[in-house]
Amino acid sequence: MNYLMCSVGRRGELMKDFRQSMEAGSRLIATDNSPYAPALYYADAQYIVPRIDAPEYMDILLEICRKEQINAVTTFIDPEIMLLARNRDRFATLGVEVLAPYTETAELCFDKYEMFKFLRQHGIRTPMTWGTCEEALEAVRSGEVSFPLFVKPRRGSGSVGARKVESEEALHAAFSADPSLIAQEMMTGEGCFDLDADIYVDTVSHAPAAIFAKRKISTTIGGANKTISFKDETLFAFIREALKPFRFNGPIDADFFYKNGEYYLSEVNPRFGGAYLHAYGAGVDFIKLIENNLHGRENVPAIGDYEEDVVMMMYDSVVIGKKTDQELLEVLKK
Amino acid sequence: MNYLMCSVGRRGELMKDFRQSMEAGSRLIATDNSPYAPALYYADAQYIVPRIDAPEYMDILLEICRKEQINAVTTFIDPEIMLLARNRDRFATLGVEVLAPYTETAELCFDKYEMFKFLRQHGIRTPMTWGTCEEALEAVRSGEVSFPLFVKPRRGSGSVGARKVESEEALHAAFSADPSLIAQEMMTGEGCFDLDADIYVDTVSHAPAAIFAKRKISTTIGGANKTISFKDETLFAFIREALKPFRFNGPIDADFFYKNGEYYLSEVNPRFGGAYLHAYGAGVDFIKLIENNLHGRENVPAIGDYEEDVVMMMYDSVVIGKKTDQELLEVLKK
Repeated sequence: MNYLMCSVGRRGELMKDFRQSMEAGSRLIATDNSPYAPALYYADAQYIVPRIDAPEYMDILLEICRKEQINAVTTFIDPEIMLLARNRDRFATLGVEVLAPYTETAELCFDKYEMFKFLRQHGIRTPMTWGTCEEALEAVRSGEVSFPLFVKPRRGSGSVGARKVESEEALHAAFSADPSLIAQEMMTGEGCFDLDADIYVDTVSHAPAAIFAKRKISTTIGGANKTISFKDETLFAFIREALKPFRFNGPIDADFFYKNGEYYLSEVNPRFGGAYLHAYGAGVDFIKLIENNLHGRENVPAIGDYEEDVVMMMYDSVVIGKKTDQELLEVLKK
Repeated sequence: MNYLMCSVGRRGELMKDFRQSMEAGSRLIATDNSPYAPALYYADAQYIVPRIDAPEYMDILLEICRKEQINAVTTFIDPEIMLLARNRDRFATLGVEVLAPYTETAELCFDKYEMFKFLRQHGIRTPMTWGTCEEALEAVRSGEVSFPLFVKPRRGSGSVGARKVESEEALHAAFSADPSLIAQEMMTGEGCFDLDADIYVDTVSHAPAAIFAKRKISTTIGGANKTISFKDETLFAFIREALKPFRFNGPIDADFFYKNGEYYLSEVNPRFGGAYLHAYGAGVDFIKLIENNLHGRENVPAIGDYEEDVVMMMYDSVVIGKKTDQELLEVLKK
């Protein structure tokens, strides 16, 4: 199988894991708009492409698919997901599977308030969220919630711009600076924790074929970037239910809270998560699942088929290359 | 040769470079106070030790040296450098070379204001620095400098707490919150840039045996953590002169500014820098220099013996292990 990995950036280790697992004769093709993207150097072929908002961008991707006889395409960056989703048909005519959600699901993933309303409508537990300052204050006045609240950009990626607000004044100030914010109840306190799951949504059955759950290790033990795997059938059942109303397709990374004995879905990043490395290191291999799908086979779900208490510790690695673009591309294909 | 690398933390890639370069029969021994330090897993033997401020800490290190027949010891964290320097004689009685500066030099490296005074006294160019709010304001009033100024903690490590202040009021506020700050002239403007150099100071001659210089690549090209090597005989001459009044011993990482055609020494981190990986990738091998020194041989200086325009691009790598300390130590010695 031939894979097109778009906007690979720093995801060198993911490329290495991918390569280790691909069936014989497979090729890994990578794009980025900068030759200084270290992950490029772990691909079999590299294309330096324009920014994803360039008018010719999609034609260039499709041309690469044609030339490299690509079987599946995916991206490592959020803003490109919608683009791939919208062009699913064009890829399909070339026989290329788009490992990204369908359009209506992709849209929900990138609007936290629409996502909240959708989840509520389908009875899926999620933190209480308000779309305006007035709604949030009304909830405070009625006793439904109390300060501190959490505000974050409606369309933000990850935790950029997310912060705690302690008072009515601070909430007013935050919303007048940026009316597109949302306010959310805090999911903290005794026994609460946040966690995330790397999930592979089968492209044939559209149900989860693999789930890998992990938590942060207390940062008192030597700093951040350390996570530990765990299993909980209650969580797995919640995820299976929660994903039903969506149309995901391939790898996703979902964030959850655990509070008062219940799981809550927080956000979904519908792509390979940065910590897929942990899942893979614990024996969860999405590449094999993708290959099965590309061969037209539905995967037998293997939810929780990994070891508990497997720890991931992150550190910096490097690619060394020569300055000019051409030279960069000629060296260091480890 | 047997090496004891203390407090290895996330420096996994440096351990790999070290291993690749060591002469046959050498061993790499690592310590950390947490079994979650990823670099531990690239050593031949690992010791989980107490925090460096524990009363028994030095005895434990010396015991490891004895047991593992260590030839040289170094550390990857700043607060331990002084400790190694102060105990040089105890290590020496075991035949262990301490790859860290002598005490009086180590002290200067960790007090930015004392360092400034020392550099001025020896006629070495360094950014103008003031030890109190009053001195800084006096310099502004006399027209010697104008806002913005730069403030940073006198004893801080790296750029933690460093920030720009734009006015007299802001300077007063900063110093009343933390009287131990120092104020510095800004080294920015047309044609200015900052750079750093990985330098190996020979333990026999006490002169630089290797210098590797690099700059950041403009962050408009795909984000930070990308550096490019360069050479300048003027810089090399400045470094040779600037280091003469000090008593360094082994690897150091020094920060410089370039302004109006002149180099200025900013700070010295007297240990392997995080970007030694770049130097090594460009062909500068400190391990060989250390080995020569440990065999009692002075190194022939090879200043600037590397390629220009070699680019380093950083990305995240991981170690996967099992949770319990013992299990962690038994797995993944790649």
